[in-house]
Amino acid sequence: MLPSALIERKRDGEALEARELRALLDGYVSGEVTDYQMSAFLMAVFFRGLSGEELSTLTRAIVESGTRLSFDDRGPPAVDKHSTGGVGDKVSLVLAPLLAAVGLRVPMMSGRGLGHTGGTLDKLESIPGFDVNVGLDRFREILARVGCAMVGQTPEIAPLDGRLYALRDVTGTVPSVPLIASSIVSKKVAEGVSALVLDVKFGSGAFMREPEDARRLARTMVELATAEGLRASALLTAMEWPLGRAVGNALEVREGLACLGGGGPRDLREVTLELSAELMLSAGVERTREAALETLGAALDGGKALERFTTLIELQGGDPRIVDDPDRLPSAPVRRVLESEGEGTVARMDALEIGRAAVELGAGRRRVDDRVDPSVGFELLARPGDEVSAGHPLIAIHAATEEAADTAAHALRAAVTLGPGGPPHVPLVLERIRSDAGG
Amino acid sequence: MLPSALIERKRDGEALEARELRALLDGYVSGEVTDYQMSAFLMAVFFRGLSGEELSTLTRAIVESGTRLSFDDRGPPAVDKHSTGGVGDKVSLVLAPLLAAVGLRVPMMSGRGLGHTGGTLDKLESIPGFDVNVGLDRFREILARVGCAMVGQTPEIAPLDGRLYALRDVTGTVPSVPLIASSIVSKKVAEGVSALVLDVKFGSGAFMREPEDARRLARTMVELATAEGLRASALLTAMEWPLGRAVGNALEVREGLACLGGGGPRDLREVTLELSAELMLSAGVERTREAALETLGAALDGGKALERFTTLIELQGGDPRIVDDPDRLPSAPVRRVLESEGEGTVARMDALEIGRAAVELGAGRRRVDDRVDPSVGFELLARPGDEVSAGHPLIAIHAATEEAADTAAHALRAAVTLGPGGPPHVPLVLERIRSDAGG
Repeated sequence: MLPSALIERKRDGEALEARELRALLDGYVSGEVTDYQMSAFLMAVFFRGLSGEELSTLTRAIVESGTRLSFDDRGPPAVDKHSTGGVGDKVSLVLAPLLAAVGLRVPMMSGRGLGHTGGTLDKLESIPGFDVNVGLDRFREILARVGCAMVGQTPEIAPLDGRLYALRDVTGTVPSVPLIASSIVSKKVAEGVSALVLDVKFGSGAFMREPEDARRLARTMVELATAEGLRASALLTAMEWPLGRAVGNALEVREGLACLGGGGPRDLREVTLELSAELMLSAGVERTREAALETLGAALDGGKALERFTTLIELQGGDPRIVDDPDRLPSAPVRRVLESEGEGTVARMDALEIGRAAVELGAGRRRVDDRVDPSVGFELLARPGDEVSAGHPLIAIHAATEEAADTAAHALRAAVTLGPGGPPHVPLVLERIRSDAGG
Repeated sequence: MLPSALIERKRDGEALEARELRALLDGYVSGEVTDYQMSAFLMAVFFRGLSGEELSTLTRAIVESGTRLSFDDRGPPAVDKHSTGGVGDKVSLVLAPLLAAVGLRVPMMSGRGLGHTGGTLDKLESIPGFDVNVGLDRFREILARVGCAMVGQTPEIAPLDGRLYALRDVTGTVPSVPLIASSIVSKKVAEGVSALVLDVKFGSGAFMREPEDARRLARTMVELATAEGLRASALLTAMEWPLGRAVGNALEVREGLACLGGGGPRDLREVTLELSAELMLSAGVERTREAALETLGAALDGGKALERFTTLIELQGGDPRIVDDPDRLPSAPVRRVLESEGEGTVARMDALEIGRAAVELGAGRRRVDDRVDPSVGFELLARPGDEVSAGHPLIAIHAATEEAADTAAHALRAAVTLGPGGPPHVPLVLERIRSDAGG
């Protein structure tokens, strides 16, 4: 195997044979292929894409670079969700305990926030004591007892993905559909789940702004996951403005608790229920979406989901008293309410700009090694479509300092538009994408 | 300067500002930008190209990474030639002493052969004792005394080019017009010449097979060299079959000596004279091509060019007796004549296949660290257009072993085609390309 010859063929638009691509990737793992060869190859992939066979080969090489978990077939089906990332997206906090409450097994490995989108691990860590790095053995133990466990990716799982992502991050090859798809699907395959639902967001605050790009990514991932033996589907969901009202780690945990208890914002509940229903259908534990939604709704409203989350917090070292007393969560010293300067209908609360303002405030990261302040963030007191008059509260800013609140207020003014008309109508769940091969 | 942001912009087809690209390149020189970032950037350049300003910025960064020679303006103009590489291309051996003989200064820095094309340094080193690494001071001294000097690139000249080329070689980014153009032109600018002629070959044995690709490369280089203050022109010359009759280092030196003495194959003489005439015109020492050709022809036929070469050999440590007694050059132990099996006109003597057979024989390199055997190679006893009958000698093979001669004979059979008709008519010099800005 001559790495440069394989790079040249990919550069010229050829599909590599499985054994060739595998040799290149294994060579990278062993150190025979260098970082500079891999980064040139990845840039060629950015321009030329990958064939279906190449995509499977890459995905398998990532899975096989580490441990692949497996679960007893006699137990409940293991399932997981992946979101392409949004602003105010705390669905995982609700979905994992909810599905555990209805009898599924959710071995959830999540990531941290980067750029304007948040990350589940950061949200969980705003719960005092919560440990997202419990190790693989404890992860299995907690999963067996609660039905779900929520941790960061362990070093045993798909280590090649970590290396490739770190390289892509500094060489301009992140936004490539096949590279994104293989990164996501490989980790879920390695987690050992049998069903996967993908929340592929579109709109201002999403990685893919246009629905057609989101659709292309969703289809690629569903096909790839299906080819790798998972039952997979995807929802295209809107990310023009934040999901729910809370943006920022502790604030989002509060909102997640509300949702787990049967309350919380309607859009958060809807997206969570729809994604969860997909997994129940894929896992074969319900026959129809309606039945699944009913079971799930009952688990939220009846307190079962919240109960699971409470136990989970306890077993992962967190303070379960936050469930009944959310004021035990970190809170910011400065609270300022941004009020409407005019009168009209809220037409726009730009997710990207709000996400960026939250990063600026300290709720997220510009770079991987930035520290996150769990207490800061925003609460949307009005939402798109609401009619407001002058002086009407729009957004509550939770900040560490007055200066930070000033900066945030300035950025938020630009993120909000009032109009005579309301926001464009975008369905919250635009589309379901299921495998041609599957059901 | 965030390297990944610059890579992303190039990837997306933007032109970088001069200060941005310069920061990236200077960062690479200083070690702040890594090899894996540069290789991803170069792959993006492969797909997206470089603007005229970017090309100049890259070229200047390469020049300024090392020493830039300069010559006394009161002395003769300093000129040089670059060829994109061919099979049997020994033009440099003749052109440098020839132009010295007509009063120009030729500070020639050449390369080694790689792949199926030969290199001037390898040819010179087949002269016993000839030293192509005399150092920069001695280079200037010899140049002052002879009017020409022929050496390898010294480490002081354009070191960034060496690093970039080594990286491109193993990451699939060699065949990029802007990267080739900046590599070639920067080295000539750093050499301190005021006029440059480019021999851009097209055809089977050339880097660019199609005349339009060769033209594009030639235009890019002429424009770039002109923008950097050189008087530059290019000739597109044919490389369907080898130039001259000799392929292989010592054999080519013999043929070069013949040409320097006024003899040798007609095509070699023609290409050498045309390229040399371009330089005389660019340097302003002749007014018309006809006058230049006459002056140059007289220098060959009258022995002045050969005299310069003899002195050059002596000053660079070589054995000048090879001039009068070429049998002192290394010769191969096995000589075998390949004869025609049929009757007809030689329609094809494929330059690429002959070049590859020569590498196989040991005359060239597959990899940069291969050793070259100066004695081996081929003499074309018939040439395209010649009529031959069965048993007519076609090619003399000079080999180290009988086995090597067998292998070569087999390869050469496939490289030669007899036809009822002769070869397609391709003009030896297809086109002259001069700068729009220049004359």
